[in-house]
Amino acid sequence: MKKSYNTEILSVGTELLLGHITNTDARDISEMLSKIGVNVRYHTVVGDNPQRLRDCVRIARERADVIITTGGLGPTCDDLTKQILAECFELPLVECAEEKASLYEYIRGGKQFTPNNLVQALIPEGASVFHNRWGTAPGCAFEKDGKIVVMIPGPPNECVPMFRDCAVPYLKRLSEEEIVSHSIRIFGMGESAVDQIFREEMDHMSNPTMAPYAKECDCLLQVTAKATSEEEAEAMMAPVIARVKERLGEYVYGTDIECIEEAVLPLLLERGLHFAAAESCTGGDIARRITEIPGASGVFVGGCVTYTNEAKAKLLGIDPELIEKNGAVSAPVAKEMAERVRGLTGAELGVGVTGLAGPDGDGVHPVGTVFVSLAVEGQTWVRELHLGEKRTRSFIRRMAGNHIYDMMRRYLTGLNIV
Amino acid sequence: MKKSYNTEILSVGTELLLGHITNTDARDISEMLSKIGVNVRYHTVVGDNPQRLRDCVRIARERADVIITTGGLGPTCDDLTKQILAECFELPLVECAEEKASLYEYIRGGKQFTPNNLVQALIPEGASVFHNRWGTAPGCAFEKDGKIVVMIPGPPNECVPMFRDCAVPYLKRLSEEEIVSHSIRIFGMGESAVDQIFREEMDHMSNPTMAPYAKECDCLLQVTAKATSEEEAEAMMAPVIARVKERLGEYVYGTDIECIEEAVLPLLLERGLHFAAAESCTGGDIARRITEIPGASGVFVGGCVTYTNEAKAKLLGIDPELIEKNGAVSAPVAKEMAERVRGLTGAELGVGVTGLAGPDGDGVHPVGTVFVSLAVEGQTWVRELHLGEKRTRSFIRRMAGNHIYDMMRRYLTGLNIV
Repeated sequence: MKKSYNTEILSVGTELLLGHITNTDARDISEMLSKIGVNVRYHTVVGDNPQRLRDCVRIARERADVIITTGGLGPTCDDLTKQILAECFELPLVECAEEKASLYEYIRGGKQFTPNNLVQALIPEGASVFHNRWGTAPGCAFEKDGKIVVMIPGPPNECVPMFRDCAVPYLKRLSEEEIVSHSIRIFGMGESAVDQIFREEMDHMSNPTMAPYAKECDCLLQVTAKATSEEEAEAMMAPVIARVKERLGEYVYGTDIECIEEAVLPLLLERGLHFAAAESCTGGDIARRITEIPGASGVFVGGCVTYTNEAKAKLLGIDPELIEKNGAVSAPVAKEMAERVRGLTGAELGVGVTGLAGPDGDGVHPVGTVFVSLAVEGQTWVRELHLGEKRTRSFIRRMAGNHIYDMMRRYLTGLNIV
Repeated sequence: MKKSYNTEILSVGTELLLGHITNTDARDISEMLSKIGVNVRYHTVVGDNPQRLRDCVRIARERADVIITTGGLGPTCDDLTKQILAECFELPLVECAEEKASLYEYIRGGKQFTPNNLVQALIPEGASVFHNRWGTAPGCAFEKDGKIVVMIPGPPNECVPMFRDCAVPYLKRLSEEEIVSHSIRIFGMGESAVDQIFREEMDHMSNPTMAPYAKECDCLLQVTAKATSEEEAEAMMAPVIARVKERLGEYVYGTDIECIEEAVLPLLLERGLHFAAAESCTGGDIARRITEIPGASGVFVGGCVTYTNEAKAKLLGIDPELIEKNGAVSAPVAKEMAERVRGLTGAELGVGVTGLAGPDGDGVHPVGTVFVSLAVEGQTWVRELHLGEKRTRSFIRRMAGNHIYDMMRRYLTGLNIV
């Protein structure tokens, strides 16, 4: 692929412009493209409006070599992506017999019959058809006038697998250059501090490059190299990555993972250890996070969500007097939660969290006060967190969970825990 | 505001184009703008590249009256939004004394000292400054050459409150027309079926309008009216909304809410009832969902996440023989989970869920098989779900949760439950 091979993702849907849905498709497609060395230069979102879509296609043709559309392939009359793209590239729409047959079969398969479904079988002449195994609307791709157009349905549970299984192989054959990228994930140090440490080095880098990014509750350093082979790119990055890990030390929780629980799962697996969670203000989110990952049952036993004081007594057997004396949001209660859920389940590690996620306080502590705890045989640690009164409920819950997983990570790798 | 007053949201950040983060800012800003009658016509994402950003600003000036930028206001050298926008609109950057003082104070307040933070105090001459109470980089807004430019930091926990508290009041004074919109949320009927029912009616509507949208695990009908006052818009929509609710009946779970648990919370509150949850394959997600909503403690007691058979025995007291005989993924186990968590916690309602979220099956049932249950005094219902072998883990977990909340909703409103 020539170096300047530029891609634009053009998402079509008024619901995106009204803020009803988030454009996760553009993110997911971008991530897949960056892995195969395709440069995404622009994301554009336009509504279900023929003239504005035409204008966006014109702009995309001027500035991009590959145009990837998402959305507007469905059965309703708002769905006009295929019609407009075919018109802009002067291709007639023709009926695809296989897709028509498949739609009939799908409709018979217990779904409500809707004849408007059949317009989905129309495809720009000469296009490669991407059959939709996850829904009804097929995708497609064609090349014309030196441009490549790929059209994918909008619903994320169709878009993502279809792009991965159909569009990625279609586009991969174009690439001559490999772009390889690794993200070094950091917890406990902010983006600004990371930037400061590496600013001078980054200013003098051209290939590989390095850039810090802030995430909601942690941050990362992205290292990227371009080369003629993956091996060469990896070799170029290896010393840079080693230097960063050396410099940031215990703050680095992993590479090429999305979240800290992904680092904890293999650490537990390797050691044959399990954990259980007793959650108050996180309300099940610590359990949810580990169980989002396939294979969680090898390391996570279960736990209790004790959202009320009564539940803390009934489910975990915590003495109501302990709560009475210290308050539910306190180090002694956090300690007891971790120890009791560990004892109840027989897991080697027990974690506990109690705090104020807001918006209302308890009249004693400010919102954002959270106690997180880790209990193992013979020892329990508690961290007292002050996550900020102005933080959102979801930030406080997520950050509390990050601290729980950070404590486990540190325990499992022999670092200081509190 | 004149009818054609068009807005473009221009998000700046290479991390968006690499797919490292999702553009939730564009969604959240769009939602806030649609509520004050500002039409969002385009979202654009461009990387941290001066020339491409200049080109995007040129296009936005041609097609929009209001340009809202997100991102690129921070302290690192990648942050060039303010510089480029000031250059494009021929405004010098001047130091804002209040912001400089505030940055010094912030830096002294325990954060790592980073002198690069101070570039954030530079503001285009004459701009209104939006002080950032949620982070360091201030936002700003100016009018020039008939265009309005608003610049907001990128991190969502800064962007959203700053846009709400600073940019919305700034923009609101421009509006003469009210756009009011309601979304009717539907569970148990697909977008295509809903479209079919209302297609003819929708084709003949101009103001108000109505449009169906698919969400990940349910769908909605959006009804929108434009008028000179909110009252007038509401009056125009009222008969349409009444007709839709009449026609779709029990499939409608609420209006202007985001998810079915938001419908269940007030139903429980009104009746003074509480629930507890015993979760296997959803892994805490049912608890997490209700506790995302402030006030959940009034209706949700807590529950158990019993991710292993052992945890089902130890935490809920389920007889291992029952699991042995029926399998963990079975109606009898689901029934027992709901009844036992209800009994353990003393909640009036108990819910249970056990199933296969994938990717691995259990050799007996296909992935996507889930049993969801609801127990009340003297009666328990179980729904057997087949959510599709090709569905993602996260879809199956979310859909199972939707069914749990749908069963509660139906119980609480006197509808058929299974």
